[in-house]
Amino acid sequence: MSKKSQKVKLGLVQMKCSDDPEANTKKVLRRIEEAADRGAQIISTQELFRTPYFCQTENHDNFEFAEPIPGPTTELLAKAAKKNKVVVIASLFEKRAAGIFHNAAVVIDADGKVLGKYRKMHIPDDPLYYEKFYFTPGDTGFRCFQTRYAPIGVLVCWDQWFPEAARLTALAGAKILFYPTAIGWHPSEKKEYGERQKSSWEIIQRSHAIANNVFVASTNRVGHEGSKKGGIEFWGHSFISDPSGRIVALAGCAEEVLISTVDLAEVEFNRVHWPFLRDRRVDAYGKLTQRFID
Amino acid sequence: MSKKSQKVKLGLVQMKCSDDPEANTKKVLRRIEEAADRGAQIISTQELFRTPYFCQTENHDNFEFAEPIPGPTTELLAKAAKKNKVVVIASLFEKRAAGIFHNAAVVIDADGKVLGKYRKMHIPDDPLYYEKFYFTPGDTGFRCFQTRYAPIGVLVCWDQWFPEAARLTALAGAKILFYPTAIGWHPSEKKEYGERQKSSWEIIQRSHAIANNVFVASTNRVGHEGSKKGGIEFWGHSFISDPSGRIVALAGCAEEVLISTVDLAEVEFNRVHWPFLRDRRVDAYGKLTQRFID
Repeated sequence: MSKKSQKVKLGLVQMKCSDDPEANTKKVLRRIEEAADRGAQIISTQELFRTPYFCQTENHDNFEFAEPIPGPTTELLAKAAKKNKVVVIASLFEKRAAGIFHNAAVVIDADGKVLGKYRKMHIPDDPLYYEKFYFTPGDTGFRCFQTRYAPIGVLVCWDQWFPEAARLTALAGAKILFYPTAIGWHPSEKKEYGERQKSSWEIIQRSHAIANNVFVASTNRVGHEGSKKGGIEFWGHSFISDPSGRIVALAGCAEEVLISTVDLAEVEFNRVHWPFLRDRRVDAYGKLTQRFID
Repeated sequence: MSKKSQKVKLGLVQMKCSDDPEANTKKVLRRIEEAADRGAQIISTQELFRTPYFCQTENHDNFEFAEPIPGPTTELLAKAAKKNKVVVIASLFEKRAAGIFHNAAVVIDADGKVLGKYRKMHIPDDPLYYEKFYFTPGDTGFRCFQTRYAPIGVLVCWDQWFPEAARLTALAGAKILFYPTAIGWHPSEKKEYGERQKSSWEIIQRSHAIANNVFVASTNRVGHEGSKKGGIEFWGHSFISDPSGRIVALAGCAEEVLISTVDLAEVEFNRVHWPFLRDRRVDAYGKLTQRFID
């Protein structure tokens, strides 16, 4: 099968966050501008770029960080999207109603219009990642957004460990899965487990690319946040995987705007040459909706 | 959480096959003996070890290779299992009834009793892998076998590309997923795509270990079979992955009996420290039984 090229340039904004939401927002807007100047057409932020990763503690004051979607930050991003003719995927702390908050992502098309939002479906809760305190589990389900440049899906951080999430998003039509992320090391564990943890994180996301014959683009946070002896060291290493699971662009562990061109024709090509979707045993998958088969 | 060790020694018999089923069967029995002598407790063959990989052509005569399960080969393997007090996982071409053939795997416990069988659920059909001609898709579903040494699951080759298969087998209770396999390169493609294909194959299986916090043990065939200029070069590289996706044992591309000890306590440990099963959104996975969401 011949490949008729359908190239799209992606931009992943990997950055460090301060305690100042205004400063972080300005920084992300500058980086979006930079990515657009370098030709990026679809630009993704990391998870919760407006704030420090406040989930390291359970503190009711942090709910003040939340805002509606659309809301003030969405508006700023929409202006940038329209001005630069770029699609923007932005992870935001959403205030939906009194007492209902989501870890959400808004998708803004290249004309500045909000295409919709995704609300993080899988919510972690681990030492220093107390997300179940803050975020009501999402109710959007797994979605595809028909942007100007590509049909895309957005999933957020912890979602990346669940093949079901990637599969459903791909089945909805997404050819690129974006994962705004905030993952890092507990400094005390880094020496013993650090490399292995990062490797697991890469492999699981590359596997979604393979299983679904899609691109995966994961944008992670960098920098150390939290207590000096403890806290979290966000490991960066944002990356883009092609549908064979090969990393075609990889950031380091410092701030970086990662730019890379992908060719959506590879999705078509891989779907025909590695025809997994043809052979799924949909008649035998019913028990995937069970917690455990006991 | 402390880890109370539950060690099990695995043996993967990676071998070259001749055109003579009797010779191949004798070879596998010798290798099972060797693995047992080296301490292996659960031993897996590669896919369809009794025969050459006959699916390279569509030839009705090849149905002669099939036999019932239990049947003559099961009996020989059961004797070896009992004598050596080892669990044997063997991939066999099953004749179930006139015109109904399966690519199956039999699981024999360490006392020689047949625990049951798995019939390959996902059947490929690609150039030189004409399996849809030979094998009726399995109807066993995804199973866990309570062997003497561990609760295990068996999936076969093409199944490895489907996260659903691994998930359902793990949810049924399996702590080790075995993948008897026959995968290789088309020699004409090897230079351009070979390394990437093998890498995709490793990553997707390592991802099943990660997503389900289980061990994965994949036994592949070696050697070139088929026409001299074409055919398939089976790439070997049988491996065992721990629940973090790290390869803990890796064979080369020649005949080898790969032996390695795994500790099932790591499954318990990882399930608590990377609690993916806790957070699956079973309420939102219903559409996994759809072919496509359109």
